[in-house]
Amino acid sequence: MLGEFDLIRAILSDNCKHRDLVIPNGDDAAVLRCGGQLVAVSVDTIVEGSHFSLDYFTPRQIGIKGLESSLSDIVAVGGRPEFALVSVTVSKREDFAKAEDIYAGIRDASARCGVIVIGGDTTVGGDSLSLSVTSIGRIPSDEWITPRSGARVGDQIYVTGALGGSAAGLHLFTAKIAGFERLRLKHLEPKCRVDLANSIGLIATSMIDISDGLSSELYHICEASKVGCVVYEDRLPIDLDTRELAAKSDLDPFRWAWNGGEDYELLFTCEPKDAAVAPGTLIGEVTEERVVLVERGGTREKLVRGGYDHFRRGEELKA
Amino acid sequence: MLGEFDLIRAILSDNCKHRDLVIPNGDDAAVLRCGGQLVAVSVDTIVEGSHFSLDYFTPRQIGIKGLESSLSDIVAVGGRPEFALVSVTVSKREDFAKAEDIYAGIRDASARCGVIVIGGDTTVGGDSLSLSVTSIGRIPSDEWITPRSGARVGDQIYVTGALGGSAAGLHLFTAKIAGFERLRLKHLEPKCRVDLANSIGLIATSMIDISDGLSSELYHICEASKVGCVVYEDRLPIDLDTRELAAKSDLDPFRWAWNGGEDYELLFTCEPKDAAVAPGTLIGEVTEERVVLVERGGTREKLVRGGYDHFRRGEELKA
Repeated sequence: MLGEFDLIRAILSDNCKHRDLVIPNGDDAAVLRCGGQLVAVSVDTIVEGSHFSLDYFTPRQIGIKGLESSLSDIVAVGGRPEFALVSVTVSKREDFAKAEDIYAGIRDASARCGVIVIGGDTTVGGDSLSLSVTSIGRIPSDEWITPRSGARVGDQIYVTGALGGSAAGLHLFTAKIAGFERLRLKHLEPKCRVDLANSIGLIATSMIDISDGLSSELYHICEASKVGCVVYEDRLPIDLDTRELAAKSDLDPFRWAWNGGEDYELLFTCEPKDAAVAPGTLIGEVTEERVVLVERGGTREKLVRGGYDHFRRGEELKA
Repeated sequence: MLGEFDLIRAILSDNCKHRDLVIPNGDDAAVLRCGGQLVAVSVDTIVEGSHFSLDYFTPRQIGIKGLESSLSDIVAVGGRPEFALVSVTVSKREDFAKAEDIYAGIRDASARCGVIVIGGDTTVGGDSLSLSVTSIGRIPSDEWITPRSGARVGDQIYVTGALGGSAAGLHLFTAKIAGFERLRLKHLEPKCRVDLANSIGLIATSMIDISDGLSSELYHICEASKVGCVVYEDRLPIDLDTRELAAKSDLDPFRWAWNGGEDYELLFTCEPKDAAVAPGTLIGEVTEERVVLVERGGTREKLVRGGYDHFRRGEELKA
């Protein structure tokens, strides 16, 4: 995606300090201190062709996906999402009814998550549909903040829910396979883990939402925390539907789990003493050696940092 | 613009109450109460073809316009803009250098306004360039909030700066007229009135920024405040360059002043006792009779609610 992180870093390099800025840009959400409260803010844009296709998304589902994916960023820093601002751009060829349906999806998802839409705008222009959602939430106190940089050597690594379902759902559309309705909805109507917003922040030392795929999120955590990790492939939570579809399609379900984006589950670390209350599956440990390792079949190797739809070789951690 | 206000109203109708929501959606910015502080938030999206043309805007100027127009909304509710999140979508045909130049403009404008960019994303997709900016600021206390609904019968009506300059600048491009560099920059590099953020909120009873044109902003204020007004056309502040270009083009400069958008000056009301410190030009009074009147040449008539580029007949105030 065009060196996004480098670009954002460039605008921040000479301009990123403020006494009320607790977590700056670069994490899932920025965190501000406002009169004794902690406010988390994030923006997320989804664009036709890049993040969704009108071939299989309904306008209502675009609204749902836009809102849930943005709220997920607030949950990922330990906050509870409370408010959203939505900016919808409809191309000239879109009709009024389509925009109304997008707003219906936004309304449905905001009701599910207990969020109020407090602003936004609608623009007609361009040739693509896009939706930009700004999410705002509050974090109870400093101990609840879960920055990417908080992982410590000896911490355990967990993921919530099951992985790869959204990628499996997308495969149903691209390979034109019938059935598996639940997986289809995993892709079309993702649900962020707002249900964990009131519990996970208290035990997690670091956290990130899985929007780009587990493997790259592990790299993000390790780079920000200046640690390494080892993850056990056979522990990755993959549900039966996803395994069944993979078997039927002669594909590797672990590939979806490692590199399938948009599951919007949470990847977090916590101290071993909190294992009993950690709401997820234990998949690995944080290590001092600064390398991201995967153990499969009794041997360890560098984990390939995958993306949503591309593969690269195992690589070095960035400074 | 596609019934924007009706659409936004639709998503809010069943979902707009929260104990910490001081000013809901529908004003220039939403205002939240956070731990004893007042936080104003707004989002503004500009799209190639609708809000700017790459024929005469440089990428840097697109960044400037996107940031300044969004920060203006914070100033308009009585706040001082402090933080911004920027979401840039570049079409597939745009190159990396163009995105970098947009960020350079964002950096320049944020430095001018004393604002920090705390988040954002960059997306490649679609066929149009667009920029969505979320602005965040704080308001010193409740008395500083300047909602659209605060105008009272007997208040005076003021505008800051000069009007019509941006429309005059646009005319230079569309009519291919040379010279008038200052007007050209009024259109390409607008400056929001962040310089007034620390003074105007204390005296203004209501305020709005002039993004769509003075005439429609007057209607917004009167509708929200449930009042009417009379405005004196010969008092509208129009600078010499704008008058000169109008004369040269055989056009009416008042047309630009009434209906030219994107001046990002402020329209505000205040009590007559504050006249000595009001930072602008007195153009009219708030009246009990619920109609928006313009006085020109000694006679009064209903003001035409214009838009940026279209004209309609004088109309009734909405309930």
